Amino acid sequence: MNTRAPVKTAGDREAPGAAGAGTGGPLAGVRVIDLTSVVVGPFATQILADHGADVIKVEAPGGDQGRYLSGAARHHGMAWKYLHLNRNKRSIVLDLKQPDGHQALVALLRGADVLVYNIRPRAMARLKLSWEDVHAINPRLIYAGAFGFGQGGRYAARPAYDPMLQGLSGSVALNMAATGSARYVPFMLADRSVGLIAAYAITMALFERSRTGIGQAVEVPMFENMVGIQMAEHLYSASFAGPDVPGGSARVGDPRLLDPNFRPARTRDGFLCISLNTDRQAHAFFDVIGRPELKTDPRFGTMTARAANAADWLALRAEVLAERTNAHWVDVLSSADIPHAPVQSLDEVLADPHLADVGLFQRVQHASEGELVQIGVPNTFSASGAPAWRGAPRLGEHTREILREAGYDAPAIAALLASGAANAPD
Amino acid sequence: MNTRAPVKTAGDREAPGAAGAGTGGPLAGVRVIDLTSVVVGPFATQILADHGADVIKVEAPGGDQGRYLSGAARHHGMAWKYLHLNRNKRSIVLDLKQPDGHQALVALLRGADVLVYNIRPRAMARLKLSWEDVHAINPRLIYAGAFGFGQGGRYAARPAYDPMLQGLSGSVALNMAATGSARYVPFMLADRSVGLIAAYAITMALFERSRTGIGQAVEVPMFENMVGIQMAEHLYSASFAGPDVPGGSARVGDPRLLDPNFRPARTRDGFLCISLNTDRQAHAFFDVIGRPELKTDPRFGTMTARAANAADWLALRAEVLAERTNAHWVDVLSSADIPHAPVQSLDEVLADPHLADVGLFQRVQHASEGELVQIGVPNTFSASGAPAWRGAPRLGEHTREILREAGYDAPAIAALLASGAANAPD
Repeated sequence: MNTRAPVKTAGDREAPGAAGAGTGGPLAGVRVIDLTSVVVGPFATQILADHGADVIKVEAPGGDQGRYLSGAARHHGMAWKYLHLNRNKRSIVLDLKQPDGHQALVALLRGADVLVYNIRPRAMARLKLSWEDVHAINPRLIYAGAFGFGQGGRYAARPAYDPMLQGLSGSVALNMAATGSARYVPFMLADRSVGLIAAYAITMALFERSRTGIGQAVEVPMFENMVGIQMAEHLYSASFAGPDVPGGSARVGDPRLLDPNFRPARTRDGFLCISLNTDRQAHAFFDVIGRPELKTDPRFGTMTARAANAADWLALRAEVLAERTNAHWVDVLSSADIPHAPVQSLDEVLADPHLADVGLFQRVQHASEGELVQIGVPNTFSASGAPAWRGAPRLGEHTREILREAGYDAPAIAALLASGAANAPD
Repeated sequence: MNTRAPVKTAGDREAPGAAGAGTGGPLAGVRVIDLTSVVVGPFATQILADHGADVIKVEAPGGDQGRYLSGAARHHGMAWKYLHLNRNKRSIVLDLKQPDGHQALVALLRGADVLVYNIRPRAMARLKLSWEDVHAINPRLIYAGAFGFGQGGRYAARPAYDPMLQGLSGSVALNMAATGSARYVPFMLADRSVGLIAAYAITMALFERSRTGIGQAVEVPMFENMVGIQMAEHLYSASFAGPDVPGGSARVGDPRLLDPNFRPARTRDGFLCISLNTDRQAHAFFDVIGRPELKTDPRFGTMTARAANAADWLALRAEVLAERTNAHWVDVLSSADIPHAPVQSLDEVLADPHLADVGLFQRVQHASEGELVQIGVPNTFSASGAPAWRGAPRLGEHTREILREAGYDAPAIAALLASGAANAPD
C-alpha cells in the first residue's frame, strides 16, 4: 500500500453504534494489572482495554520483549506490533525481584479487579504471586493465566511459543494435509485465538463476581484450546466411538476441508470464492451452468448428499468455474443471488471501500511515535459505547502517576526510582 | 485414529480446577435464546453453554442446516460437527412466520437474558425481532448479532460465509504470499474467531448489565473482525503514516511471517518447530551449532537486530537445522534449554499423552447417538466450576418442556403443535 489508503482521522468514525461512543465501554472502571508480554497476554488485555478497562501494564526494567520483536519502528522499543497490542494501556516499570518493587505491585493489586499473567504458574509462585498469595491480598481479585499447557498434564513445565503450538496442535499437519507443505498458518494463530479465549474467560469471572462478590483463579491453557478449536472442525468420524462408527472406521480430518478442491476456485483469469451450501444456492448454480438435471441427482441434489459426496461436488464446481472469467461469474452469480466474493490482496484489503465506510483503519497521532494507522474496534455496544483511543505507552511512561494513585507520596516514589525498584523515563 | 485413542470416560476428568466442577460454571443461571445456525452463532452459544448458560436453541421446522452439512452421522440431522457445536443446549422448534410461533418466542424472551442471532439485522426486523422490538418486550435483554458486515458500510446487505470472508479479509492472500498457493486456512477461521469474539462481547454486556440493570444491542461484524485480527499481525510499516515511514515506504505484510523460511525446520529426517526469540535462546543456539561469534554479530546479536534481519536469520537457522536428524536436535536443544516441539499429525494429536493426562478427549454416551468422543472445555474456574456435559439435542427435543417453562399449559402446547407453530418429535 501507500499512504493514500482511505483511512479516517480518529473522531471521524461513523461506525454503527458510534452514537454511544465515548461513554467508556462495557468494562469502564475495571482495573486490570497486566503482567503479560509478547503476544498472547497483551492481546487478551488489549481487548479488555479496547472495551474500557484501565489496563496497567507492569513491565520489568528491560520492558516487554514485544517492544523489540518486530522490525519496523520509529524508536527503539516502540515496534509497530507492540503499538497495536498495547494501545489504550498505561505502563509502569517495577522490578518484582526487589522487595520494594514487589510491595508496589501488592499495593496495585489491592485496588485492582483482575491480574493477568502468561508465564507458568510455578514461575508466578516463585515471584510470590501465586493464586493463594494474591487471594489473601485481595479476595475480590480475578487471577487469570494464559500459558502453554494445563498444569494437570505432563507438559505442564514446558515453555510454549506460537510456532511450537501450531506444530503440536495440528495446525501444521492441517496445512500439510491441505497443501502438501509443512507451513504455519501465516499469523500467530495460537496467540490470537487464546487471547480471545482469555478475554471471554476473564469477563465471565467478572460477571460471576458481580453475583458472588469474590474473585477466582482462571486458567487458560494454550495447547488444549488450540487442539479444541481445530479438532472441533476435524474430529470427523473419530467423533464416534463404540462399534458402529459411520463409514466403518474412526477417521480424523474433515475430508471436505482437506480436499484439494476446497480452495478459491481458479477461473480463467483469477480466483473466486463461492458458497453453495443450501439447496437453493446449489440448485440456482445448476441452472446457471445449464445442468438443471443435477437438482435431482442423488449425489448432489440435497445438502446431505453433497456433504456425503464432497470430493465429487468440489471437483464438479472447480471444473465448471475454470471455464469462464471472473467477470462472467460475478455477473451470473450475482443475477442468481449466489454468494461469492473476490480474493483480495492485502493492499486491496487496506483500500477496501466498505472498511473505509465503517472507518476500520484510522489515522491517529501518537505523542512520541507520530502519525499512525490504527485498527479500530469493529464491535459496537449501544449503551456502553467505546473508550477514546490512546497510544501505546513508552516504557514506564505512567510509573509515577500509577504509584501516586496507589498511595505513594513524592518522596516514596523518588526512593523507589532511586533504588531501581521502579523505573520511569526522565 | 482408531478407537483405542486414550480418551477418558466423562466423570473421570482430572483437569486442573476440576475440584470445582459441578457447581455449574460462571454463566450458570443465564438464559440464552439462540436463533443462530450453522457455525459462527452456534459456536458462540456453545461457549456460553459450556460455561453454564441455559442455551435454548430455537430452530425453524427444517432445523439448523448445520445438522446436515457434514458428512458423518449415525442419524439424519445429527451430523458429527453439529454434535460438537450444539452440546449442552436444548432445542425448541418454532415457526416464527406464524403468529403463534412468534408469540411463543416472545414468551421465551420475557424470561431470557440474551438473544443471539446471526442473520442480517434487516432480516431480524422482518421477523419483528429488531432491537427496538425486543427491547420493548424485555429491557434487560442483551441483543447480540454476529453477521457478515457492519451495517454502516456498503457491504451491509451482503451474505457472508466463511470461505468468502477468508477471501475478502486476506486469509487467502496471506496463504498465497507464504506458500504461493491460493488456499483457505483449513478450518473455519472466520466462523471460529468471530464466535470467540461474540462470546466475549456478549459476556461484557452481561457484566455491564450487572451494573446498570439494562440490556443493550451488541453487533459483531465478521469481515471487520477478521481484517482486524489478521492486519494486527501484518499491517507492518503501513502502521506508520505521515512522512517518515520506517524503511521509506508503507508496506503491508509482515516479512518475517511471510518469509519462505518461516516454517517448521526441515531436518535430515523430518520437521521440527523451534523458538529462538530471546537473546538467551539465540545465544544458546549459537553455542549449540558451534558459532559463538554470532552472539556479537551486528545482524544477529540482539532481538532488535534479528527482527531487522529476519530473512537472513531464518535462512541461517534453516540451513543449519537441515544438516542433522530430529533426534540429534531434540537432544542438543533440550540440553541447552532451547524451546522446540515436534510437528504432530492429527492422529498423534488425538493420542497425545498430555491431552490424555488432562482428559481433553472424553467418551460420552449420547441418548440417541450412542457412544461419542467429545472435546472437553480446557479452561478452569476455581470457584465457578463447570457444568456437566449433555448431548446435543434432537430437533425439537425440548419443545414441550421449554413451552411449559414459559407458562404454556398442556392444551396450549397441543394447539401449537397441531397448528405447526411449534414442532416436537412424537
